[in-house]
Amino acid sequence: MKIIGKNAVNELIKTDKTVDKILVQNGMRDGESQSIIKNAKNRGFKVQFAEKAVLDKECPNGRHQGFIAFTSDFVYTDFEDLLSAVKDKENAFVVVADGIEDPHNLGSIIRVLECAGADGLIIGKHRSAQVTDLVMRISEGSANHLPVCRVVNLNTAIDKLKEVGLWAYALELGGENIYKTDLKGKLLLVIGGEDTGVNRLTREKCDGVITIPMHGKVNSLNASVALGVGVFEAMRQRTL
Amino acid sequence: MKIIGKNAVNELIKTDKTVDKILVQNGMRDGESQSIIKNAKNRGFKVQFAEKAVLDKECPNGRHQGFIAFTSDFVYTDFEDLLSAVKDKENAFVVVADGIEDPHNLGSIIRVLECAGADGLIIGKHRSAQVTDLVMRISEGSANHLPVCRVVNLNTAIDKLKEVGLWAYALELGGENIYKTDLKGKLLLVIGGEDTGVNRLTREKCDGVITIPMHGKVNSLNASVALGVGVFEAMRQRTL
Repeated sequence: MKIIGKNAVNELIKTDKTVDKILVQNGMRDGESQSIIKNAKNRGFKVQFAEKAVLDKECPNGRHQGFIAFTSDFVYTDFEDLLSAVKDKENAFVVVADGIEDPHNLGSIIRVLECAGADGLIIGKHRSAQVTDLVMRISEGSANHLPVCRVVNLNTAIDKLKEVGLWAYALELGGENIYKTDLKGKLLLVIGGEDTGVNRLTREKCDGVITIPMHGKVNSLNASVALGVGVFEAMRQRTL
Repeated sequence: MKIIGKNAVNELIKTDKTVDKILVQNGMRDGESQSIIKNAKNRGFKVQFAEKAVLDKECPNGRHQGFIAFTSDFVYTDFEDLLSAVKDKENAFVVVADGIEDPHNLGSIIRVLECAGADGLIIGKHRSAQVTDLVMRISEGSANHLPVCRVVNLNTAIDKLKEVGLWAYALELGGENIYKTDLKGKLLLVIGGEDTGVNRLTREKCDGVITIPMHGKVNSLNASVALGVGVFEAMRQRTL
């Protein structure tokens, strides 16, 4: 896959992922660009300089900021690996995204979770956006730092996470006030798709439904904003 | 301007704005559509039915969901009107957005503020996205319910809001922990552009800088997500 944009490439080379090649536009002389080029070479990656037109061809919307990296396809984390990582972790914090179909929202959700220091994200193999080049770019490279698992059956995954002690809350309208809910300890937050919300069967798997109190007339937050508010409220409680 | 999409049109007709015409796709028979059509007629608005192709022509990306409303251009609130509205309001809560250039972010910010019940948003006349049809659609019609002011000089506006008792915080990296800051009372939150952050002179006008603590490696939240986290933390403190 292609990792596009200065920030995304910069984040990529800090990970342990293998980079096949980095294409750099001629004349990137600012300090940040020089530092990326130096770090990439130190890691032993092939750095290839080219005219802007060459990069524009790889990225038709032109928003490459002079940097495009080529890597193998995104590597999802095995669900069993995530499960053993959180099994004995006191403050484990995992999110299940049920039916997020807009790649912008998925990228933004990954960015939120990485910033919050969550342990991982679980998405469905079906009825869900997957981690594509676009999602990687929207995530500003965060997808390289967050374990993302892809499973066929979200409900089975929720069951297994509950078995190892995670407490599952659906973040939706019509539930308990999130600010009056204890979100410390092992936590699993379940969010639904942009229009569909959390699937009924999935919601019934959860130990509770929590809601962000709203004070306006429209009262519909974008999926990634709602998740951001919920996730950072959990982090606030955990770091009090 | 055109207000596009079922939700956005539904929200529009609940306001006191004048609607010139509502174009409805033939065959919208679900309950929500029927209720919008009935409410629009009750308000005395012209409702015109048409084939899908007619609506597609008005909205080339096809995401009109059967409803397009035509209104006069977006009416910004006069800054002096916002100022007198918040002058004697105990819990006044206003946001200044300094240089948000992406219309998606502006729409999302408006949506956040409307959900949080903020009193208004102030944007610059220059170096800022304006409230266009696209912003209106992204805001899901929230822009019809939130006073948005447009001023030439944000710093003058901040000075005037401080004079009537609002306490100004810039929401940025490198400040005080937002969770340890008292955000009750009359509050002015200042946010910066996607890449530029809050302008130095504007930041110096503020009484303090507050920061969302991050726990990851990339640690850069999207502007509207960061604002969502900040605004809902303020609302949490105010409604404890």
